[in-house]
Amino acid sequence: MSRRLAVIGGDAGGMSAAAVAKRREPELDIVVFERGSYTSYSACGIPFHVGGEVDPLETLVARSPEKHRRNGLDVRMGAEVVAIDLTARRLTCAGGSEEGFDELLIATGARATPPPIPGIEAAEAARTLEGAGRLRSAVDAEGGRDRCAVVIGAGYIGLELAEAFVRQGLHTTLVDVADQVFGTLDADMAARVQEVAEKLGIVMRLETKVEAVVLDGDGRPRAVRTDDGELPARHLVVATGVKPAVDVAEAAGLTVGESGGLAVDDHQRAVGQDGVWVAGDCSESHHRLLDRAVNVQLGTHANKQGRIAGTNLTGGDLAFPGVLGTAISRICALEIARTGLSEREAADEGLDVVAETVETDTRARYMPESERMWVKLVAERGSGRLLGAQIVGGATAGKRIDTLAMALWTGMDVEALQWVDLSYAPPVSGTLDPVLVAARATAKLV
Amino acid sequence: MSRRLAVIGGDAGGMSAAAVAKRREPELDIVVFERGSYTSYSACGIPFHVGGEVDPLETLVARSPEKHRRNGLDVRMGAEVVAIDLTARRLTCAGGSEEGFDELLIATGARATPPPIPGIEAAEAARTLEGAGRLRSAVDAEGGRDRCAVVIGAGYIGLELAEAFVRQGLHTTLVDVADQVFGTLDADMAARVQEVAEKLGIVMRLETKVEAVVLDGDGRPRAVRTDDGELPARHLVVATGVKPAVDVAEAAGLTVGESGGLAVDDHQRAVGQDGVWVAGDCSESHHRLLDRAVNVQLGTHANKQGRIAGTNLTGGDLAFPGVLGTAISRICALEIARTGLSEREAADEGLDVVAETVETDTRARYMPESERMWVKLVAERGSGRLLGAQIVGGATAGKRIDTLAMALWTGMDVEALQWVDLSYAPPVSGTLDPVLVAARATAKLV
Repeated sequence: MSRRLAVIGGDAGGMSAAAVAKRREPELDIVVFERGSYTSYSACGIPFHVGGEVDPLETLVARSPEKHRRNGLDVRMGAEVVAIDLTARRLTCAGGSEEGFDELLIATGARATPPPIPGIEAAEAARTLEGAGRLRSAVDAEGGRDRCAVVIGAGYIGLELAEAFVRQGLHTTLVDVADQVFGTLDADMAARVQEVAEKLGIVMRLETKVEAVVLDGDGRPRAVRTDDGELPARHLVVATGVKPAVDVAEAAGLTVGESGGLAVDDHQRAVGQDGVWVAGDCSESHHRLLDRAVNVQLGTHANKQGRIAGTNLTGGDLAFPGVLGTAISRICALEIARTGLSEREAADEGLDVVAETVETDTRARYMPESERMWVKLVAERGSGRLLGAQIVGGATAGKRIDTLAMALWTGMDVEALQWVDLSYAPPVSGTLDPVLVAARATAKLV
Repeated sequence: MSRRLAVIGGDAGGMSAAAVAKRREPELDIVVFERGSYTSYSACGIPFHVGGEVDPLETLVARSPEKHRRNGLDVRMGAEVVAIDLTARRLTCAGGSEEGFDELLIATGARATPPPIPGIEAAEAARTLEGAGRLRSAVDAEGGRDRCAVVIGAGYIGLELAEAFVRQGLHTTLVDVADQVFGTLDADMAARVQEVAEKLGIVMRLETKVEAVVLDGDGRPRAVRTDDGELPARHLVVATGVKPAVDVAEAAGLTVGESGGLAVDDHQRAVGQDGVWVAGDCSESHHRLLDRAVNVQLGTHANKQGRIAGTNLTGGDLAFPGVLGTAISRICALEIARTGLSEREAADEGLDVVAETVETDTRARYMPESERMWVKLVAERGSGRLLGAQIVGGATAGKRIDTLAMALWTGMDVEALQWVDLSYAPPVSGTLDPVLVAARATAKLV
């Protein structure tokens, strides 16, 4: 009888592992358990569907269950795994049915962690396509300028959803207990994001705590009550962060790391377990600068980790080289990106750093499409080693973060960075690319 | 008496050197000789003025002679240096006047090398702002669809100028003896550029040799005669390449390298000369992959080399770390970029390489603005070391070349490159950035 791989979770981590494993070992019997009704979808694309840029909802599905099945995978939809017995090599689904396995891949993703306040269950989390569909339907059914939306949580997903509501014509308020938007940026860079978001019409209520959701007679949101008054909220989204979904795995005996994710070695093998693999949002990842495990929830890591797990569980030998904390978003025509450590994070680590921000242009200043952009670099004092970068600016600004991620990846210092042969032509850059301008300015402080 | 620096050439190389030297050593007496009537201008921006995107012409001037004078530089305009006596430390201008110097910086740039055919002097080279102004005035005075333009030379400048003419409503033909456009790309990638250029309306006449320019009674172009018939050409530009302008320096005893540029050490010091410095298009540059001197004419190198020369001639110690041959252009809404060696160049060097091209998307495929793009990588067979990259694609495709330039700069191999933590969000990238997709595909062939 052929070996059997059970995959828990049908999104990026699970399905990339399953696809790679099937390609490498066609006789492997692969069964996938997905508790929702979609596989391989782009959760990152949800705000663009809510905002009406991407239609229909199914556009966000990269590969349907049927397509996966045609590739020889036994995909079970609406199948929630509630228990795992690693000794007996069996798992139990919500209905009580049991399935055996030889190899197990855990790709259970992450789950929303709404604040524990009365009525919060009436808010959408907008993390699944099902939730996205409900949100959009509600907006289509009763949108318009006379309607109000509230988004709780001013991180990047909260900002993207607030923008989506504004695009749909809703009066939109963004609420957060923090004193800045986009908590993964330093405050000075986040202020530029806030300014643009406010210009678009998003009302900001920072340092404001939501205490309860006020419901109407049908149990739908009518308003949110905060420590600074009530905000009308016919449409309500909570985007206050997510936690790795590890309950079932932890109950089965897997180790949960300090980051909250499942502990793995660099081959995506669950620490201390044979034949148990982990990929995606529920996994820990090695942070190359912090040199410790972190939990980063991002489709690009899930895809890579799934590929690595799928390769290794079929006899391969691939190591995940870790993460830098690179991230990018576009909010209100502003591109926002970061990699490595922010100035605040570096300080929290006790590192002695210099930081510099340059204001420059996305293209040669005389080109009509040129827009302003800002690059902030953080470098180790003395050595000049680059530790982190943040970019905020107009169209095309953000993807320059990849150049800086490469510099971080290879351990480059800002003095060396300023001389690299980066591309120049007036429609895409000034004579010296903003990355070089920022490296030069920062090198002066080292 | 204070030391005196004479700078020959008032564009990027010369003026960045002069500015840095003045800032570092305010008492240094600096005199700049510029034979034209502009300083510090963007030659790369000329096609955008000709095409009507950038107006007026003076927009292309980053810093005027007056501004440089206010910074304490003695800038002489219309001053052509015709002889240098390195022993006597004196130079002679075209009018016969002489000037002494202690330190000398040569930043004489490059000059057009039109084919030696009858009537060619009636064609514009469009390398200077004066030439750009004449070209644009002629188009403004007698443009329109009934008028014809010919561009000789289908490299990137020729393509940019052909696009500019089409934007101005002229019937435009691009002629080249070569069998492909954009000679610095491999033929397969160049074919994509040609296709888009033809769709815009540029008529391509490749493998066609221009034999003479036919003039009207006023000595203005009327047509070009080729080995394949006559082409009407009221507006005529020659963009067949340029050579370093080294005659005066060579006559003074400076060494001209095999590349045709002036030979320098890594401090931008003329080889074998004390107190003589070289920067910009007339200089050789060390190519990091070929490990030999090349001549690359690009404002970004001129700026860096001028800064290095200006620092070193005032007691500093900076080395120019070399070039990769990174270049980018936007032609007809297509971004085109390259770095390192093309497949053909690698073969010419006798290198055993693998090459792979991936067709992918500039953004998540479901985003409305997403466009197709192609990434071609060249890697050393066996080691997988990245040797070169080419990108052709829609808006935002091209600047990814910088990520690849960083990989080349640091000697990364394609296997390692596919796992780097590059940024992902639907408006700017697929789940795996095209750079990672290309690295993965190429790694399979190594």
